[in-house]
Parts: sequence; C-alpha cells; structure tokens
Amino acid sequence: MNNSTLDLLRSHRSIRKFKDQPVGDVLLEQILQAGQSAATSSFLQGATVIRVRNPDSRQKLAVFAGNQPYVASAPEFLVFCADLRRAGNCCERHGKTFSGEYTEHFIIATVDAALMAQNTVVAAESAGLGICYIGGLRNNPREVSDLLQLPVGVYPVFGLCLGYPDQDPEVKPRLPLSVIVKNEVYDDRGDVAVIDAYDEQVREYYRTRTGGGHGISWSEQVATLLSEKARPHMRGFLAEQGFEFK
Amino acid sequence: MNNSTLDLLRSHRSIRKFKDQPVGDVLLEQILQAGQSAATSSFLQGATVIRVRNPDSRQKLAVFAGNQPYVASAPEFLVFCADLRRAGNCCERHGKTFSGEYTEHFIIATVDAALMAQNTVVAAESAGLGICYIGGLRNNPREVSDLLQLPVGVYPVFGLCLGYPDQDPEVKPRLPLSVIVKNEVYDDRGDVAVIDAYDEQVREYYRTRTGGGHGISWSEQVATLLSEKARPHMRGFLAEQGFEFK
Repeated sequence: MNNSTLDLLRSHRSIRKFKDQPVGDVLLEQILQAGQSAATSSFLQGATVIRVRNPDSRQKLAVFAGNQPYVASAPEFLVFCADLRRAGNCCERHGKTFSGEYTEHFIIATVDAALMAQNTVVAAESAGLGICYIGGLRNNPREVSDLLQLPVGVYPVFGLCLGYPDQDPEVKPRLPLSVIVKNEVYDDRGDVAVIDAYDEQVREYYRTRTGGGHGISWSEQVATLLSEKARPHMRGFLAEQGFEFK
Repeated sequence: MNNSTLDLLRSHRSIRKFKDQPVGDVLLEQILQAGQSAATSSFLQGATVIRVRNPDSRQKLAVFAGNQPYVASAPEFLVFCADLRRAGNCCERHGKTFSGEYTEHFIIATVDAALMAQNTVVAAESAGLGICYIGGLRNNPREVSDLLQLPVGVYPVFGLCLGYPDQDPEVKPRLPLSVIVKNEVYDDRGDVAVIDAYDEQVREYYRTRTGGGHGISWSEQVATLLSEKARPHMRGFLAEQGFEFK
C-alpha cells in the first residue's frame, strides 16, 4: 500500500525555521476546517484555537514557552486549548447545572484538542507547510492564559508554529513497532534488546545531525526527562482554571 | 487549495458497520507506522497500542465499552494506551529514579496517544478503511486493563475499530469556525447567535438521518452530557495505575 497521504505522514519532522512567505487567511481557514473534521468525544467539540498574530503577544509567548524564538518568528502561531466553558454555557442555555471538573472531562477536552491539532497538522503539511508543536507553553500556563484571556474551563494544551519550511531536517527514527504495538496483552519482556539497538540508531542520528556533537540515546534522554520534576505548577494552575480532577 | 489529503480529512465520519474483508497484517503495520510518525512530546513516544484479535477478548471489550457490538465485530480493534512505564524503565536502565505521577506526565502521555491515534486514523482512511473511536472503554477501565494486562504506568485512553466500511453515513456538521477559532484572545460574546443557527442545522441532520426521529440540537446534547456525572471512577482507577496528578 502506498499513497500520497501515507508518504506525507511518514515524512513528518518538526520545522523551526520558516520562510517569510505568509500562510494567508484562506489557506489557514481551510486547514483549520480540515482539522475540525477530526472525531470528537460525544460530539463535544471541546477544543478552541487562539490564532495569535500580534507581534508583542508573540514575543511574550516565545518567552513563556522557555525562550523558543520561532514562536515569535513563525508566520502563524496557534494555541490549542481544551475548552469546557462552551459546554458549560450549553448547560446554562438549557437550564442544567454543569457537573464539571471530573477527571474524565479533562481527558475528553484534552483529547479533543489533540485530535483536532493533529488533523490540522496533517492538513498543513499536505499544503506544503511545516509545523512545530510547542508544549513549552505549559512552562508558564498562567501567564499564557492571562495574555490570551482564557476563562475558567479553558486551558492551553500546546501551541503550534506554522509556515513554509526554510530547513529540511531528517525524519527522526521512531521506536520499532514491536515495542509500540502489542498483541492481545501488554508484554514488554522482549523490549530491552530492541531498545538497545534503537538507542544506538538514535545516537547515530544525533551524531550525524549535530556534526559529531552529543550522541545521546533515546533511553538516556527519556530517563533524564522523567527523573526530573515535571511542571509541578500544572495541577494548581488547572485547579484555578476549573479542572478539579474529581 | 485542494488536494487529496484535505479531501480525505474533510470527509471523515465514524464507521460502525464493516465488511468481512480483513485488513491484513501488512496494511495494518503500514498504517501504524505512519501513525507513529506523529509528533511526540520531548521524544517520549508515550503511547502503546494493544491489537486485540481474540474473539473472546473482543466480546468482553464490547461489553466493557457499554455494549457496543462493533467492538467485537470490527475486523481490527486497537486499544491506544498512554504509557509511562516504558519511560520508567528507561530511568531504571540509567540508574535514575522515575519522578512519575505529575499531572504534566499524564498530559504528555495522553496527548502522545491521541496524536498517534489520529495519525493512524488518517493513514487508515487514506487506505479506504473506516474507523470509530471507542471512548466507552473508560466505562470500565479496570476490567479493560485487567484483560489486557496493563501494568502500572499505563492506561487505556480509547479504542479504535477499523475495517472496510459497509455503510456510508453523512459527514456530521461541525461548529462554525468562528466559534472554534479566536483571534488574539478568547472572546465568545458573539457565539450565542452562531450556535443557535448551528443547533438548527444539527437538528435537521438528525431528523434526516433518523427518518423524522429525534431532532436534538448540539447544545442540548452537550448540556445533557455535561450535567451528568462523568465516569467518576476514573480518578480512582488512574491512581491505581500510578497516575497521581501531583
């Protein structure tokens, strides 16, 4: 099986350097509409996207994201939010009380935002654009939310840079499918040797890409990441935004 | 702008009735590999997919999902899991302690699973398959996890039915883009009238589809959903699986 969509999906890599060429309102709208066609849990449509063009806001977001300059310089920057406020308003409209704040609601809205974002990404890439997800917005979610005037019931899941690529990085090798896909039950007993070989492949990828620089393996990278405190402010921030994890 | 990928994305609808024709191992592998090419937060690759073919397991999953027969009858059924166990193992491998259990980790792994799933869906649809997400697995996540032997650090986010469509439902109309996409800041003051018109469109969609049956609007549907308790067991279940929301 081979088709242009499969080729497109397999050729994904993050783009952080963009040409000046604007994306344009018409194309952006088409891309977002295609994005919106993604499945949505119980038809909730629990995602809201903030398109930020104001250069001052962009500059601030770039800093909030942990100094990622392409957040400011990308032709387009979208913030994908999980949104339960719209659903809460529907309750009001029909004289019902929003039960809100369940962990399940958090999952539904977060997944809705992610599905719409990934569809948007595929649409964008099919039009020749490059993208980069910006999870770094969660470094300073309070500041991001204040800037974008996000009300209670809404939180920024991640940002997305878009534009015509001005670089052509290699596709980053993924874990072998045998590690990711299991048959019938979860069984990772055979994974150690496979990950060893993959680690070597990733080391080589970094060595080549950085011109002989750091050749850190996948498992080292993940170990470093997961042994550190991960944005410990998120829980408190989400509580402020009305996500209570009941 | 028009291309086959955009057309494909815009034509998505859930399929719940499938032909007997099998998907086949080779195609499924290609689809999952394309799915895996999606972005992953900090290169974590925090998703694991369980492919369930055993008819007895399928029957059980169909019941756990709230009696959705197509979970048993679809040619393929995949369970997309958020997985921090693999990352935890990487910590062990490099003599580090897994900090685990932060809300942020829950977000990262859940989003990773969703991004990979949506890429998998696009790949599948590009090959002529139809799909249906099964969030209903979260009705009985403990039973699902026991059946699939999901260890601590892993939870089932949703399932996915796949197969060649044996029905041709209409595309479900989505909220107008002006409700979903905002400029610079979150401002929903103009949305009420737009949602009124959309509600009428959705009523009409249901009236046509169900042959004059229920013509429930979007906002009524959402109000009903969000005024009920939403899977209140999720928090306790996730705690058992090691997701602590620190």
